Amino acid sequence: MDLSLPNPSWSKDMRLLFDQFMKKSEDGSWKHLPSYKNKFSRRIEDIKVFFPDAKLIKEKISQAQLFPRNFEEGLGFEYAMFHNHAEDRTVCIFQGGPYLQGAPGFLHGGAIATMIDSTLGMTALIAGGIVMTANLNINFKRPIPLCSVVVINSQVDKVEGRKLFLSCNIRSVDEQTLYSEATSLFVKLDPEKSLT
Amino acid sequence: MDLSLPNPSWSKDMRLLFDQFMKKSEDGSWKHLPSYKNKFSRRIEDIKVFFPDAKLIKEKISQAQLFPRNFEEGLGFEYAMFHNHAEDRTVCIFQGGPYLQGAPGFLHGGAIATMIDSTLGMTALIAGGIVMTANLNINFKRPIPLCSVVVINSQVDKVEGRKLFLSCNIRSVDEQTLYSEATSLFVKLDPEKSLT
Repeated sequence: MDLSLPNPSWSKDMRLLFDQFMKKSEDGSWKHLPSYKNKFSRRIEDIKVFFPDAKLIKEKISQAQLFPRNFEEGLGFEYAMFHNHAEDRTVCIFQGGPYLQGAPGFLHGGAIATMIDSTLGMTALIAGGIVMTANLNINFKRPIPLCSVVVINSQVDKVEGRKLFLSCNIRSVDEQTLYSEATSLFVKLDPEKSLT
Repeated sequence: MDLSLPNPSWSKDMRLLFDQFMKKSEDGSWKHLPSYKNKFSRRIEDIKVFFPDAKLIKEKISQAQLFPRNFEEGLGFEYAMFHNHAEDRTVCIFQGGPYLQGAPGFLHGGAIATMIDSTLGMTALIAGGIVMTANLNINFKRPIPLCSVVVINSQVDKVEGRKLFLSCNIRSVDEQTLYSEATSLFVKLDPEKSLT
């Protein structure tokens, strides 16, 4: 089940943005990226060269699920991503629910970091294949009100061998408020070396 | 209800570490920090000078709860923190459940960032009062296996006016594996200025 499609918890802003990007996707310049709780389940055979115990762990931990998708509808991370292949860019529209609170009335820094890592990670994955986050450097400029909608804009800045340098920012829907900025380093996994 | 006490989902490692730190707390050098879903609920009057709409938001969003405490027992973030006042240090023992998955069998980078922000934030809060995360810079050195127990060690490195510089690392229980390192900047909120 694709969890990046509109549901009754989505606000008007969230639906408007989704519709705008779906419209941009009609000519193929943008592409809607589906999202599942068990992101990697069908690819376990492809990746077990990197994580030799992944299959074992997966069997043992039968409940394992993708972190940002483990909340009831509307309470946690509601988001959808769109990718622009020509520009190596991904946009994530994100509505953070009441279970993501840090300071009262605002999103937890960890919830913001989670959506940043997810969006940058998706951009890096599309550009470089199987990657891991090596560094994440986030400037939190203004607190994000709980239950508001924000837009995360991410891009690949540079590729050096197995290293991918990406950056992103988080803005309000009207683009007038800059909430956060981040830079990151992702590393392509080397099939010659396992991580565990 | 204090959610930082042992429950049936805690592994043997988690219980052993908890008992060790409770023992260290007997002479008062360390102190166990309780943790609640509604962390700030009793302090809303104290903080509304910083967040003038916090009370309004809280009333509107009656479901608002502290992000890392919103999972069923054992599925998400199981953690307990202990503070050493003389050394301005906080230790967090953390068992990340199956709903925190990123790459298969491993914790999501955002889940790691969440516990880092929570631990550093608690250390900064004790040292400086009401603070906000301004910067978080994380190096992910090795992936953390799902359902394992790790130890986060955080400390205040420097205070300059309203700025608090903190750092932390995440290690395995036997301290042999360094999983992540982070530096951070927290800023004390100025009662003269509201954030919204």
